Amino acid sequence: MTDQTASLADRLSFAAPVRPAAGILPSSKIGEVAMVGRGDPDVIPLWFGEGDLTTPDFINAAATKALQAGETFYTWQRGIPELRDAIAAYTQRVYGIDCGPERITVSGSGMQAILLTCQALVGPGDNAVIIGPIWPNIVSCVEIQQGEPRMVDLTFDGSSWSLDLDRLFAAVDDRTRLIFVNTPNNPTGWTMPSEMQKALLDFCRARRIWLVADEVYARIVYDRPVAPSFLEHAGPDDPLIVVQSFSKPWAMTGWRLGWITSPDNFGDLLAKLTQFNTSGSPAFLQHGALAAINEGEEFLAQMVERCRVGREVVLQGLSRFPRVRIARPDAAFYAFFAVDGMDDSLEFAKRLVRESKVGIAPGIAFGAGGEGYLRLCFASAPERLHKAMDRMAPLLA
Amino acid sequence: MTDQTASLADRLSFAAPVRPAAGILPSSKIGEVAMVGRGDPDVIPLWFGEGDLTTPDFINAAATKALQAGETFYTWQRGIPELRDAIAAYTQRVYGIDCGPERITVSGSGMQAILLTCQALVGPGDNAVIIGPIWPNIVSCVEIQQGEPRMVDLTFDGSSWSLDLDRLFAAVDDRTRLIFVNTPNNPTGWTMPSEMQKALLDFCRARRIWLVADEVYARIVYDRPVAPSFLEHAGPDDPLIVVQSFSKPWAMTGWRLGWITSPDNFGDLLAKLTQFNTSGSPAFLQHGALAAINEGEEFLAQMVERCRVGREVVLQGLSRFPRVRIARPDAAFYAFFAVDGMDDSLEFAKRLVRESKVGIAPGIAFGAGGEGYLRLCFASAPERLHKAMDRMAPLLA
Repeated sequence: MTDQTASLADRLSFAAPVRPAAGILPSSKIGEVAMVGRGDPDVIPLWFGEGDLTTPDFINAAATKALQAGETFYTWQRGIPELRDAIAAYTQRVYGIDCGPERITVSGSGMQAILLTCQALVGPGDNAVIIGPIWPNIVSCVEIQQGEPRMVDLTFDGSSWSLDLDRLFAAVDDRTRLIFVNTPNNPTGWTMPSEMQKALLDFCRARRIWLVADEVYARIVYDRPVAPSFLEHAGPDDPLIVVQSFSKPWAMTGWRLGWITSPDNFGDLLAKLTQFNTSGSPAFLQHGALAAINEGEEFLAQMVERCRVGREVVLQGLSRFPRVRIARPDAAFYAFFAVDGMDDSLEFAKRLVRESKVGIAPGIAFGAGGEGYLRLCFASAPERLHKAMDRMAPLLA
Repeated sequence: MTDQTASLADRLSFAAPVRPAAGILPSSKIGEVAMVGRGDPDVIPLWFGEGDLTTPDFINAAATKALQAGETFYTWQRGIPELRDAIAAYTQRVYGIDCGPERITVSGSGMQAILLTCQALVGPGDNAVIIGPIWPNIVSCVEIQQGEPRMVDLTFDGSSWSLDLDRLFAAVDDRTRLIFVNTPNNPTGWTMPSEMQKALLDFCRARRIWLVADEVYARIVYDRPVAPSFLEHAGPDDPLIVVQSFSKPWAMTGWRLGWITSPDNFGDLLAKLTQFNTSGSPAFLQHGALAAINEGEEFLAQMVERCRVGREVVLQGLSRFPRVRIARPDAAFYAFFAVDGMDDSLEFAKRLVRESKVGIAPGIAFGAGGEGYLRLCFASAPERLHKAMDRMAPLLA
């Protein structure tokens, strides 16, 4: 037993030693704020990355039908063939590119897709360069794999977010296994321009580093049908892994279904890792996802309109407060705003729950580069958002 | 980049290096056999660890009701409170012990429970002592964590399986983080006696090693209501983790739901790891599991009776073949039998698919200690099993 293990086990008082890398995993700071409001029905919950709509009926009906038809056995590790075919066809339809089902792997959520990818690529001594601020779970996945997360933060000039590509490249060394970018970005709404995507992919190709793109907000965009994707620049042999999810476009956060688009020959590795993680996603749920991807454009359009309205309510609401600065988000469903004079976003978010009865996420939850900010999810009914803006006035004015 | 990584990446021709520990993960040998019969509707499939019954209606109905009620949002990492309470009550009812919901964590399958446990306990340089022959996925989980699996095999005397506890203890050293035992055992049906469980738990307690018990076949037993459990000897502070699953007792293999019973203070760590793996299981599916555990005894009794009939058909069928030796299984739903003169179970199983149109699992899939054996799942209709026995006669006689 190493001293490190022993002291950690003693410190945490487990019955026997746990792995140090697991013992020091952080708790969710969003969860910490949510705990303050737990059980209080008066709090308006805008802290999590999900809207207030339940999954639409046509998706539920498709899953229910498959359940009743007896699709309750073990199934394909990489997803049922019908769904992989449909995702490939969707990819071709939406991006106008050639993509076959051999590049598609259904995963038990975008989260699970990210962990599988880290299991495939990252080990002790490796590092992963991550563009922040960002949803924190990718950082923890790298840490579970005993890799080193290296943050390179976007910069905010008071009205927009931008990435210094040279700074990103400078963070890469010989032990860098992947560069992780979430575009459109949670929490900022920043979207990497297509030319920059091409330059980044070229860099990764030349350096033989994986580019892992989390594109789960690709369809939650306000001035075009879809955000630019790395897939538009990549062939089936490029070191690109794109993570997608059914959660955000089709109000399916609770279903835990996503997918990975990878090179052709990466699929077997994903199948093996899936076997040892979840052994595949429930087949009857995949029939719900099949309905979403084949028949979900109308619902998606409504979802985006709802978010667009929510965005205007929140942007106008925040414009009342001179202390607040924000980049107008062109994508995703978050307002990520700086508050002058606020240097402890976790404490401030807790005060907002207690004193204003509004639940939002502290910027520090998205990495050190997020301190000084707050994140509010505007995928909610406008009257709810109006009320939240009014309630926050005493603390933000 | 290390030379090892480079050569592996070159060998496997990936677009950029993958992690060596991931690149060398084995493919499923059961899957390899199944591939031989893929698409052939004449093959009788008895290779996987599931029966031929679909999930019963009362479980499906409960899940469907929750889905229609809008339980489609993010949910509790450790499972919905109603289900954790019900599992705790079930544990008390079935084992006659005191167990509160703070010890219960719902997981996305027994498989996911095992991976979570390995993520919590095993890192590079650690080892895990595993009692074999065994379902191979635990071995791969240890390898994903870059730990060393150490097999200690049961021995077969021609009519029964047994474990030499001294040999097990001798395999433990200072870097042993856990001992893994599957009881009742897949594939042999061997069940660790209660006194031996107590001795093993005492050893682990004294050595501060985790005892991880996979008890997913606890209810598939033929001469008592439930198999002995380590829980009967452990308090809430002992280094014991018990893995359970909804799959086998309630024909829910495709649902991917299981649970972990752990010490009180292990729950936070499991919650954090769950966050970064799957972020929790779908709430509406958990309502199906709730129905199973609260109202599932009648179905379970029918399932056990069906397996008991299947067991007799298969034992009588195999008794026709002088080359075959088997221990009568008191638990689980497998016939694991030795075939004299067969030294390549993988090849033999493939021949059975091709020539006899019967799909069974090769013993080598369960570790080196399984070579020379075949595994047949008898959780099927008797007429199907009769037919399979007849078909195998030319190769087994």
